[in-house]
Amino acid sequence: KRLRDHGIEIGVLNPGPLNAVTDVPGVRVGHTTLIKGDNVRTGVTAILPHSDNIFQKKVPAAIFLGNGFGKLAGYSQVKELGNLETPIVLTNTLGVATAVNAVVDYTLNLPHNEAVQSVNAVVGETNDGYLNDIRGRHLTEKDVLLAIENAEPGPVKEGNVGAGTGTVCFGFKGGIGTSSRVVPKEAGGYTVGVLAQTNFGGMLKIAGVDVGKQMGHYSDSFKYATDGSCMMVVLTNAPLNSRNLERLAKRAMLGLARTGGIASNGSGDYVIAVSTAEASRIPYVSEQLATSAPAMRNEAMTPLFLATIEATEEAILNSLFTAESMIGRKGHKIEALPKTEVLEMLREAGKIR
Amino acid sequence: KRLRDHGIEIGVLNPGPLNAVTDVPGVRVGHTTLIKGDNVRTGVTAILPHSDNIFQKKVPAAIFLGNGFGKLAGYSQVKELGNLETPIVLTNTLGVATAVNAVVDYTLNLPHNEAVQSVNAVVGETNDGYLNDIRGRHLTEKDVLLAIENAEPGPVKEGNVGAGTGTVCFGFKGGIGTSSRVVPKEAGGYTVGVLAQTNFGGMLKIAGVDVGKQMGHYSDSFKYATDGSCMMVVLTNAPLNSRNLERLAKRAMLGLARTGGIASNGSGDYVIAVSTAEASRIPYVSEQLATSAPAMRNEAMTPLFLATIEATEEAILNSLFTAESMIGRKGHKIEALPKTEVLEMLREAGKIR
Amino acid sequence: KRLRDHGIEIGVLNPGPLNAVTDVPGVRVGHTTLIKGDNVRTGVTAILPHSDNIFQKKVPAAIFLGNGFGKLAGYSQVKELGNLETPIVLTNTLGVATAVNAVVDYTLNLPHNEAVQSVNAVVGETNDGYLNDIRGRHLTEKDVLLAIENAEPGPVKEGNVGAGTGTVCFGFKGGIGTSSRVVPKEAGGYTVGVLAQTNFGGMLKIAGVDVGKQMGHYSDSFKYATDGSCMMVVLTNAPLNSRNLERLAKRAMLGLARTGGIASNGSGDYVIAVSTAEASRIPYVSEQLATSAPAMRNEAMTPLFLATIEATEEAILNSLFTAESMIGRKGHKIEALPKTEVLEMLREAGKIR
Amino acid sequence: KRLRDHGIEIGVLNPGPLNAVTDVPGVRVGHTTLIKGDNVRTGVTAILPHSDNIFQKKVPAAIFLGNGFGKLAGYSQVKELGNLETPIVLTNTLGVATAVNAVVDYTLNLPHNEAVQSVNAVVGETNDGYLNDIRGRHLTEKDVLLAIENAEPGPVKEGNVGAGTGTVCFGFKGGIGTSSRVVPKEAGGYTVGVLAQTNFGGMLKIAGVDVGKQMGHYSDSFKYATDGSCMMVVLTNAPLNSRNLERLAKRAMLGLARTGGIASNGSGDYVIAVSTAEASRIPYVSEQLATSAPAMRNEAMTPLFLATIEATEEAILNSLFTAESMIGRKGHKIEALPKTEVLEMLREAGKIR
Repeated sequence: KRLRDHGIEIGVLNPGPLNAVTDVPGVRVGHTTLIKGDNVRTGVTAILPHSDNIFQKKVPAAIFLGNGFGKLAGYSQVKELGNLETPIVLTNTLGVATAVNAVVDYTLNLPHNEAVQSVNAVVGETNDGYLNDIRGRHLTEKDVLLAIENAEPGPVKEGNVGAGTGTVCFGFKGGIGTSSRVVPKEAGGYTVGVLAQTNFGGMLKIAGVDVGKQMGHYSDSFKYATDGSCMMVVLTNAPLNSRNLERLAKRAMLGLARTGGIASNGSGDYVIAVSTAEASRIPYVSEQLATSAPAMRNEAMTPLFLATIEATEEAILNSLFTAESMIGRKGHKIEALPKTEVLEMLREAGKIR
Repeated sequence: KRLRDHGIEIGVLNPGPLNAVTDVPGVRVGHTTLIKGDNVRTGVTAILPHSDNIFQKKVPAAIFLGNGFGKLAGYSQVKELGNLETPIVLTNTLGVATAVNAVVDYTLNLPHNEAVQSVNAVVGETNDGYLNDIRGRHLTEKDVLLAIENAEPGPVKEGNVGAGTGTVCFGFKGGIGTSSRVVPKEAGGYTVGVLAQTNFGGMLKIAGVDVGKQMGHYSDSFKYATDGSCMMVVLTNAPLNSRNLERLAKRAMLGLARTGGIASNGSGDYVIAVSTAEASRIPYVSEQLATSAPAMRNEAMTPLFLATIEATEEAILNSLFTAESMIGRKGHKIEALPKTEVLEMLREAGKIR
Repeated sequence: KRLRDHGIEIGVLNPGPLNAVTDVPGVRVGHTTLIKGDNVRTGVTAILPHSDNIFQKKVPAAIFLGNGFGKLAGYSQVKELGNLETPIVLTNTLGVATAVNAVVDYTLNLPHNEAVQSVNAVVGETNDGYLNDIRGRHLTEKDVLLAIENAEPGPVKEGNVGAGTGTVCFGFKGGIGTSSRVVPKEAGGYTVGVLAQTNFGGMLKIAGVDVGKQMGHYSDSFKYATDGSCMMVVLTNAPLNSRNLERLAKRAMLGLARTGGIASNGSGDYVIAVSTAEASRIPYVSEQLATSAPAMRNEAMTPLFLATIEATEEAILNSLFTAESMIGRKGHKIEALPKTEVLEMLREAGKIR
Repeated sequence: KRLRDHGIEIGVLNPGPLNAVTDVPGVRVGHTTLIKGDNVRTGVTAILPHSDNIFQKKVPAAIFLGNGFGKLAGYSQVKELGNLETPIVLTNTLGVATAVNAVVDYTLNLPHNEAVQSVNAVVGETNDGYLNDIRGRHLTEKDVLLAIENAEPGPVKEGNVGAGTGTVCFGFKGGIGTSSRVVPKEAGGYTVGVLAQTNFGGMLKIAGVDVGKQMGHYSDSFKYATDGSCMMVVLTNAPLNSRNLERLAKRAMLGLARTGGIASNGSGDYVIAVSTAEASRIPYVSEQLATSAPAMRNEAMTPLFLATIEATEEAILNSLFTAESMIGRKGHKIEALPKTEVLEMLREAGKIR
């Protein structure tokens, strides 16, 4: 069960029908989960902003470096050109290059891309090395291609799946989580969807309740330690240019903060934001020197900011509510969030309707 | 009474003895409060990192642009050179230039600065135009100089004082607030102090309790609106270089997020971070080409990040708890936080010891 | 006489009819020159992107920090919102705040701005303290307003005028210089105009000829020294969004490099870039959440980059060719570029047609 | 023969004994050149800042995005943490991920790195797809490891070698070039070395002479086109922190500008700057919370800036003087710089001693 299934609400805006990143029209998500033997606990999650050839019809995009201790691929070109030309892929830290190679393969081999010689793959990661034999580098290009091929609309699997298979969050089992928000009609009626790969620390707060503090269960991440990371992918059908997408991306960190995240030194916290608005697509080839695309005014951004914050908070919490206990490398065991205990705390704090 | 006087604790780290930015040794704060007639509700707050000539003994510094819709002076030089050479002054939006002129005056006229021809004044602001006749531009250079001269160590006045005289926060009366945290001895035992000028919107949360949502009292700031702003000044006696100070500054936004702040489009949210460590001071003139200053390792930053987040959250909340209702320009009235009602909510949520 | 009047050509693109920033339709430039007694050698230059109320019809803009050792006002808001809402004003380092106050005055008092409470003045500066009694702070708000009021289309006065009155460039008398380029019709036929306030050092190159090196006349600026600065203002009628304007701005530094500039530690080198395209204007108030403005594709930027580089190079050189020797503060004398000698060098190098 | 062997001098500072990046003590360079059949024209160049385990003894570093249209790996972590923990590897655009995998292999397998689970490989690239069958992706991890293993001090091979095997510069055959400068003793006597992988366009200037313009040989890169790229690696034994390394890196673009480079839209121009100073190394593991490392004062940077500019200019030109004509993919032929003709132009312009 997800957070909201327990009668807990985050924020004041309404989620979309699936309460998932796939509420944004056209968005598809695919996972490859690698659980093999005692030591392999990793995977891949792919997010596709639309169903066409993304290289030929690029989408406005931005990446915000919440805390740049990480190996995300593709940053500088997105920053410079303001667009995304591949699926977004998430995986483990040492699997990034393999995933880049796969995304390049995928792109070179799409119809109409026969002459393409340059591909900017965007691949994010967190480090699942506690549960997963990360040094063994078990991920293959085929695993990545499979995640892309399997991407589909509709409900998104969460928890110990795809790139979240082996992650740890606030000392509990983390994973993939997702959520969405719809802004009021007078603010445009757009949907903002967030997918998070949660692998970071801090003092867990659920709906504002200091769960981590009350349980005395906060990792040592505020002491001398360097692990963690959270990848957040924000998609919206609002027509946004890359400047306002960067501002949107920045707000996801505020959502992370509401869950008790502290962006510790070793936490690679990145936010990738994309507009899927059809009118905003950027053709790879064009006869025109200039094009006119719609873009939200600065003054219309605030509701989208709020939607991003709320959806990020809930996506992270959903990853904790859906992930299950896991035993991995060297017998390391990470327990799932103790839901009974946690729900009791939330009930006492009046957080359950 | 401040937040903690009501038995409410924020976070897991301990505050310093004053629970104020002045817990950082050597730091001084001064206010000039301008309340005149029906329409003037503004002021100045000055923060001095040490008691020497700051221009001659610069301090490592960084400024993070949480949301750059604002008129803060001094950004680019701090970014380029990594240091601060004047007191930090906060005031209202249209008073920045007057404050810069005053800080330049102040600096040119200090002993030993007789040959100085270039001064980078750092002046932040929020827009108090709802309660204050901001277009009247009532602030004088003398008011600014007075705040600098009056700066003193010890307890810091909060609420409707100095640069917080006319500000509004979450639809209630905002103002100046401050707080501090001491990191554990094994993390260095350093103090982080924060002073905030609160003038922004969102859905107020106090100690995680959704006060704004429960009261139905959230401003329209998530709709089509553009007001707000929060200035956060973070000082620490930990020896930090400007790169890690920028990272520290970034965390203050996570503290703002915990209070329900959303960094709306029109909110100019800036964080100025400074290390007061004596060994880290940068002499204006030196015979040496290179100098050796201590600096915290990246791996030692996490406790300082947490301290910044907690102190920022509590500084903002202190501004709300200490500010009082005010009537200003055109009879506009802003109520203070309704403490009785709010404390009742906090009690129900189990937040009061 | 300007550089080109001597038969010297820079680059491969053609200048506009005036070879000035005012070749960009609608652009106006105004100067106030302050030469008083023995010690006052300073001034103001104002550049207006169009003749309407700039606050009500903002223009896309970006500022690049070539080297941020300077006091330019207005950076963060331009960065965040991607637009300019006031005239651009250049003056001396310690005059920035006075100029900001004047620009705020100007803006508050324009018809239709009666309710405006927030103005982001963009004011750049260089330090003319060698020839000018900069500590005396002789500039008044009236001087600034006069420069704005006097702004006009047509030929632009260069040399010892306005903000260039007291500046020094490569050890010779610098000042204001301007130039323009028109990109080929197939690249859109747009005009790029540059105005520079030159006050920096390095090893002067004119049309690639190592004039400074041959004369043994290079300042010690490559040694232990901190003076300098160059302000470059780039305007174009090409419709550009703020991201591509920032890229354009970045190229002006390449033009500065071609003159032998080295962006020394103490040189505050800033580039302000603005699109004057009418269709790209951003109304202060609008009923719409989103707007469609034309913007050049990334792939169409290269000719505009080249135009910016060439126009910046020639603008800087024009400032040197038009400035005249000046005696100022404390009897300091700066000689004009020795044109006879220099032209002889250029002739020998085959640079004069 | 290199540029200087023809009696042509760039700038005013003296090169080191080898006039190469390897003049910086401890620096090693290795190449793998892949020339196979008719279509494979690519390779790898590795630069090692010192001979120890770089992961265990990290070096202060920064990367400047001159124009971020490229796939360089490792940017965000260098930006966040201010250090480099692997060799720097240059290769072709579609070979980056393979090179990252190789650098990760290399690092994981070094003695003392047995527990390492996270490696930030820094890999730069340019697109050699005109002469090389880049879509064939012929580079293997072994090729990359070989370049690292073969790295050695002493003279550096230039021209059609390593990552420069298949590159094109100003329409002529580009490649690898290197140069160095020594700053005067009173400025510290430090060495700055630059290695460039040249694959970009513009209007070639040699020692200020408009070679490209005079020959009518400038590529269409100022028209509607998107190819190019230049990777510049700057190393110095001056003790610099990451902030001043970023400033140093920025100056390399001024050196590129002097050769006629224009940073066209499609040119991925990156500068990686590293301090090799032994006292500045950053131990991966340390008992200490804070460390004291020497760092040049801001005021001492200017000579190092000049050294970077001059060495970059000459490194680029050396690549052109040493590269030879090449036939590659689909019979594409790129001519070497026509030295006889070019030297004649330089002689006429008085540029040859």
